[in-house]
Amino acid sequence: MSCDFLALAVPGVQKLSPYVPGKPVDELARELNLDPAGIVKLASNENPLGPSPKALEAIRAELAELTRYPDGNGFELKSKLAARCGVSVAQVTLGNGSNDILDLVARAWLAPGLNAVFSQYAFAVYPIATQAVGAQGRMVPAKDHGHDLEAMLAAIDGNTRVVFIANPNNPTGTWFGPDALERFLARVPQDVLVVLDEAYIEYAEGDELPDGLDYLAGYSNLIVSRTFSKAYGLASLRVGYALSSPQVADALNRVRAPFNVNSLALVAACAALDDAEYLAASRRTNDAGMAQLEAGFRELGLQWIPSKGNFIAVDFARDAAPINQALLKEGVIVRPVGGYGMPTFLRVSIGTQAENARFLDVLGQVLARG
Amino acid sequence: MSCDFLALAVPGVQKLSPYVPGKPVDELARELNLDPAGIVKLASNENPLGPSPKALEAIRAELAELTRYPDGNGFELKSKLAARCGVSVAQVTLGNGSNDILDLVARAWLAPGLNAVFSQYAFAVYPIATQAVGAQGRMVPAKDHGHDLEAMLAAIDGNTRVVFIANPNNPTGTWFGPDALERFLARVPQDVLVVLDEAYIEYAEGDELPDGLDYLAGYSNLIVSRTFSKAYGLASLRVGYALSSPQVADALNRVRAPFNVNSLALVAACAALDDAEYLAASRRTNDAGMAQLEAGFRELGLQWIPSKGNFIAVDFARDAAPINQALLKEGVIVRPVGGYGMPTFLRVSIGTQAENARFLDVLGQVLARG
Repeated sequence: MSCDFLALAVPGVQKLSPYVPGKPVDELARELNLDPAGIVKLASNENPLGPSPKALEAIRAELAELTRYPDGNGFELKSKLAARCGVSVAQVTLGNGSNDILDLVARAWLAPGLNAVFSQYAFAVYPIATQAVGAQGRMVPAKDHGHDLEAMLAAIDGNTRVVFIANPNNPTGTWFGPDALERFLARVPQDVLVVLDEAYIEYAEGDELPDGLDYLAGYSNLIVSRTFSKAYGLASLRVGYALSSPQVADALNRVRAPFNVNSLALVAACAALDDAEYLAASRRTNDAGMAQLEAGFRELGLQWIPSKGNFIAVDFARDAAPINQALLKEGVIVRPVGGYGMPTFLRVSIGTQAENARFLDVLGQVLARG
Repeated sequence: MSCDFLALAVPGVQKLSPYVPGKPVDELARELNLDPAGIVKLASNENPLGPSPKALEAIRAELAELTRYPDGNGFELKSKLAARCGVSVAQVTLGNGSNDILDLVARAWLAPGLNAVFSQYAFAVYPIATQAVGAQGRMVPAKDHGHDLEAMLAAIDGNTRVVFIANPNNPTGTWFGPDALERFLARVPQDVLVVLDEAYIEYAEGDELPDGLDYLAGYSNLIVSRTFSKAYGLASLRVGYALSSPQVADALNRVRAPFNVNSLALVAACAALDDAEYLAASRRTNDAGMAQLEAGFRELGLQWIPSKGNFIAVDFARDAAPINQALLKEGVIVRPVGGYGMPTFLRVSIGTQAENARFLDVLGQVLARG
């Protein structure tokens, strides 16, 4: 007789549904017997430029050290990030992607009986990380698909330890300005941590959006979370970081696994930080691709949510699942967001000009079929 | 006024002391102004052979995909591991190193009011992972520096959810045979998970030690944890795995972060599994190096704990800290194990013949100074 180990798991885990990632190219190729080379993936908000040459060079130079453990303190990368961001090394926490940062926050401050506040249509990892530690997730209805910061403030109670906000937000691409952030931070109770998820900030810098770093000195309850997976083009390697007060970083680093970030990620991230040209090209490609997709949607008579990210949520005003299936059959992978409560939308990552054109072409054919 | 966020952290985290890794070569070089090229590191049980050529080739072939997220399901690696280990894909869980596996077990089944049983002188991550989720660690006194499996059985109570055992054990190198494991498993209550940590098993296969895989079919409460960081030489990349019943794997995979293992680790691990030559060379180098160190210790009149790992704990019968300091000054990094309650020992990883010789030479000089 065997035992029911799911029933024995901690309550949070029993009710946990794992994150559903974008479908990998190889998986679709296997499923539909397609040539992987012909598949366009615009499903995971990945950088369509291909890798930064400087990051590649740094990786190649590190390959001889493959048998060695990473530097568990991430000395070089943390020093570089601290200098770049104008903070001390003691304010930096490295994560195995920014997913790891979100998890560390939940593990350090949330538990059964406590809660975390986040918005409707926000990143799926906020409720998952909250649920995994048995805490309650309080989802606040969105306003025009974006964060309703006033309502989020009102949702905070004595058992709230963490508020997750994203700017711009994924999967909607919505954003808020400096004044809204300042008003929000000023009114959040001092003992409630605010995680400001800026995974997509590099696409929007100087563009009406506040820079979370400007608020670190004033708010010791602020955690700014960032990633190398998007504009820096290192999604495969898993490296993100948090900037916070030294005490908050101390707690996060206690929970952090000693070698959570691999060696190649550490050196590639250092190199990527120095590759200003790549970052500028990422931004340019994204701006151009966004305009291209918007023009295409306009031509097809579709509505979309204006976005400051490297993706755009387009509304078909009817169940988008069959459209998604039809796109898959043609070798085009985008992201269904029914799981986010947006069943009439698909989220499309900005690709290269050719990828965007291919997507728009196939989408036009699919819609013409009715 | 700023808030005390450490006091607000969950109780387990407040009392958490992070893992202390082996000192990285670059860190020692910075501290003592030494040439990194002249430093010998025998501190982290790393493979001294340098990387597997097949793993390197697989990494180079994957570099064009650096901007893409890893396959969150780890399809190729899990399929390969399942075939190799004679289990189904549903029985495999991938970890960001086997450290991640240990953490996932703790997060899935431990909580305040519950406990985990492990041995004195066992891997430091067992108590850390237990403490991080606020559960109680029950450390059972060792017998001759090894696991006292009878005493560990006796330590299990109604609140025990997990028992961690390691074979061979780190940092002592001690081991138990198939009969002892079988007797133990037969008597552990069915609702208590047994994590059999076989991080070093490739160095000992067929060598009096049981193969954990042989017991999976008979014990649905067994989790065999393994790693690519040791004999497979991929410590930098962070990849480990668990083999268990499908239901236990289901729970672990719910807690697992969606992209916990990076893309280069996934392809390198697949290639490493196919590199039988590298694995054989790892084993040969280790056997020869173990004999070399034992002979050297004998010559120096030192005692040691017989080891089946890729390391050996040597006893100086007095405080080993000054000896460790003297070795560091000469550019030789080994591992102090005072934190493990073994203050008279140093743990020395098996290196290449030249590294072992350099270590023994410097050690001889240090001891001759008195």
